[in-house]
Amino acid sequence: MVIMTRTDPPRDVIRVAVSTVIFSLRRDRPGAPASVVLPLVRRTRNPHEGLWALPGGWLDATEQLETAASRTLAETTGLAPSYLEQLYAFGDVGRSSDRVVSIVYWALLREGAQLPEDAENVAWFDAAHLPPLAFDHNHIVEYALWRLRNKVGYSRIAHGLLPDLFTLADLREVYEAILDRDLDPANFRRQVENSGTLIPTDRFRTGSHRPARLYRYNQDVELAERGPLRDPSPTRHQKAAS
Amino acid sequence: MVIMTRTDPPRDVIRVAVSTVIFSLRRDRPGAPASVVLPLVRRTRNPHEGLWALPGGWLDATEQLETAASRTLAETTGLAPSYLEQLYAFGDVGRSSDRVVSIVYWALLREGAQLPEDAENVAWFDAAHLPPLAFDHNHIVEYALWRLRNKVGYSRIAHGLLPDLFTLADLREVYEAILDRDLDPANFRRQVENSGTLIPTDRFRTGSHRPARLYRYNQDVELAERGPLRDPSPTRHQKAAS
Repeated sequence: MVIMTRTDPPRDVIRVAVSTVIFSLRRDRPGAPASVVLPLVRRTRNPHEGLWALPGGWLDATEQLETAASRTLAETTGLAPSYLEQLYAFGDVGRSSDRVVSIVYWALLREGAQLPEDAENVAWFDAAHLPPLAFDHNHIVEYALWRLRNKVGYSRIAHGLLPDLFTLADLREVYEAILDRDLDPANFRRQVENSGTLIPTDRFRTGSHRPARLYRYNQDVELAERGPLRDPSPTRHQKAAS
Repeated sequence: MVIMTRTDPPRDVIRVAVSTVIFSLRRDRPGAPASVVLPLVRRTRNPHEGLWALPGGWLDATEQLETAASRTLAETTGLAPSYLEQLYAFGDVGRSSDRVVSIVYWALLREGAQLPEDAENVAWFDAAHLPPLAFDHNHIVEYALWRLRNKVGYSRIAHGLLPDLFTLADLREVYEAILDRDLDPANFRRQVENSGTLIPTDRFRTGSHRPARLYRYNQDVELAERGPLRDPSPTRHQKAAS
């Protein structure tokens, strides 16, 4: 039998936290190249008081993981993305003075997402130029960026950063921001048109340049991995059973 | 102040467990189609005594997540895969009577992996024909299978189930087992040869059929996502700094 207070957990207790990485795009001025940015929250207490950290907090014992991610995100930044995807569980022994396993979620927000006007201690940061963050949060952001770059090659995840209608130049700029490198416009157009994931519309964007056709993405395709979806064609086991 | 015993955690405590899904291939007889199989462990205590479950156990507060996965796997099945990859954190409120967040790892083992001869309460099961498992483990296996099927399309993960040298028919059989459907041999050969991920050797497998060339996979390519790897070409930020 041991005697302890609720606020002083025993040394063999493992605590579970949730954090969220939200990527969006920002440009310094209209027409400038877009950069990948994310919101960070300044810590107002120790450990790491004064350092910036990912939005997050403790998991409540009666709360679903994703609910906890949405709740702590809303409490700290006022942001409410339309969906959150689980990224990874970070649980290294030395990442905090207590033993904390952080279940990290991530989301994409379209360019121009705003923080609430009265938001304190929260700001957007360029993902490629972060200051030293609290805990292992630099490492977590690096991992999230790696996943984003990796995923942009085989999924339609870039569309999560775009409005409903966009030009091929808009789409290329998203790829360039994510991959942090310039892409050849003609090659890019050819690859995207061959992929069959975009639907051309009859609308054009006009302005100082020649009119550019607006596209939308095919709503039938997955935006990102969201769960165990099935291929609709029958499996060998299903065929054998029928 | 509350008084409690160490074996009776308070209601607001969240416990952290690790489990591992290990996929391998089996055939009922030589030459028969291969099936995806995984090892399960029969529970010898409540809850769910007598039901089969994924190998796993509690995370120790001083133990890394992956170390805990390897340790509990070795303790329950005697298996030691060359690498484990984190799959997902399952933490639904109702998945156990206590609140348990399970960090699930997965691994692939080549066809023919053996359980120790003295292994008790552990056996291989066909992933497509599982009995009702303990907790939410059917759901976890479904998710792992979905990830495997999804990933086989854009990574070289199938090679984790193959020996060093293999024929194109061997590789196709792995794809057929994972995708649970028959593939056209000529189409498959063309796609694989165009992918550039295989290196033909000068060796052939001979036997009752005409000799079949043996291939090995390109060791320079990633077997699976194993961490934040960088594209070796310079980024725009690196270019601007140089």
